[in-house]
Amino acid sequence: MKAFEVVLHHVEDEIFNGHLRVGSLLPAERVLALDLGVSRTAVREAMRTLQAQGIIESTVGAGSTGGTRISGEHGWAITNLLRLHVALELFSPADVLSTRVLLEQQNIAAAIAQGTEADYDGIQVILDEMSRPATPLRRFNELDTEFHAAIAQISGNHLIRALTIAVRESIARDVRGAAAQDMDLQVFRQMVIEQHAGILAGIRNGETTHAQELMSHHLNWRWASLLTP
Amino acid sequence: MKAFEVVLHHVEDEIFNGHLRVGSLLPAERVLALDLGVSRTAVREAMRTLQAQGIIESTVGAGSTGGTRISGEHGWAITNLLRLHVALELFSPADVLSTRVLLEQQNIAAAIAQGTEADYDGIQVILDEMSRPATPLRRFNELDTEFHAAIAQISGNHLIRALTIAVRESIARDVRGAAAQDMDLQVFRQMVIEQHAGILAGIRNGETTHAQELMSHHLNWRWASLLTP
Repeated sequence: MKAFEVVLHHVEDEIFNGHLRVGSLLPAERVLALDLGVSRTAVREAMRTLQAQGIIESTVGAGSTGGTRISGEHGWAITNLLRLHVALELFSPADVLSTRVLLEQQNIAAAIAQGTEADYDGIQVILDEMSRPATPLRRFNELDTEFHAAIAQISGNHLIRALTIAVRESIARDVRGAAAQDMDLQVFRQMVIEQHAGILAGIRNGETTHAQELMSHHLNWRWASLLTP
Repeated sequence: MKAFEVVLHHVEDEIFNGHLRVGSLLPAERVLALDLGVSRTAVREAMRTLQAQGIIESTVGAGSTGGTRISGEHGWAITNLLRLHVALELFSPADVLSTRVLLEQQNIAAAIAQGTEADYDGIQVILDEMSRPATPLRRFNELDTEFHAAIAQISGNHLIRALTIAVRESIARDVRGAAAQDMDLQVFRQMVIEQHAGILAGIRNGETTHAQELMSHHLNWRWASLLTP
């Protein structure tokens, strides 16, 4: 076993046996190096691995405010990983699209089964801001993400929510680049808003199959440019 | 930006712009360090990050057989990441179970829509080996994984297949540990075999909803010990 793997397995074991939990502070590098009989370089290499997996985060500061802790933020690590794997064509755009349709249709079913009027009103606020012509494109794209995340949020299933966002973001940059080239921007924005509004109306009215079909249509339209070479 | 991040972003950019593809050989550590004006330690830290994401793999050897290459193997990286996140309770067993039911039900629909008799016969071969009393428990567990992977394989959607296996493996160790304590092993094995056989019969007969219900029942039964504290 390489030196950095000794450190990695030690930290993983401490996670699996429950000694390290979200928010736990890791020992200082020199302490870990001494305890495990490896170099500080090996400790730092292991820390990079754990950082890439979203397991630890470092904060600057002295005493209780600084140091390396077990992180509670994780979604971005899955997103990063999928983004690179999509770029390497390990997963095709068609595979990513089907997966997203599956997840988003489940989110709609859950949003209808478990959503409250307050949940739906919150999504309407997002749509209202998207509808303002003065909203800059960058903000429009953020709100687009928020719309889908807000629907995913209602189920309370953190894993499906994380996967929905990761799958979406793994390809979002390509989708935005292609869409901007193909169409007048005002027409494009208006179509996104209308499709979102239709989906929200379907959710409010409890029309599961209809809202799911609208979502599937929306995603297929949005990603069409990636699927036709 | 830290020195290792300079290296990381360089390699990621080369992936996103298509210069690095699956199988591409990376420059030697000392060459990368020289080109990017960083230390070899920084290069090695970046390599650990890429390794953790399943992006690169190192092989030992001289000339064209050795070195660090862009990897085509990726599933284990998603599995590793989810396993740690489940251990940190970022995703609850109930969330993981619902996600798996969703994925496996999609796999059944695809296996019915796209499967051939040869596909189904291949799954039967797995069940036959599971049914032999002489099959050791370790092999039985491997075949259990193969059964679910073979159904996922039929769709040809690599992302859904990778997620199915990752979600399953993220919690498999806990499921096996709990099941072994609760029940006579022969009874347990017989129940797994019968449930698998029912699912396969449902797929062969094109009974989508029935086969999906059997799968949901199977997974809920298998994971029950994790959901009742």
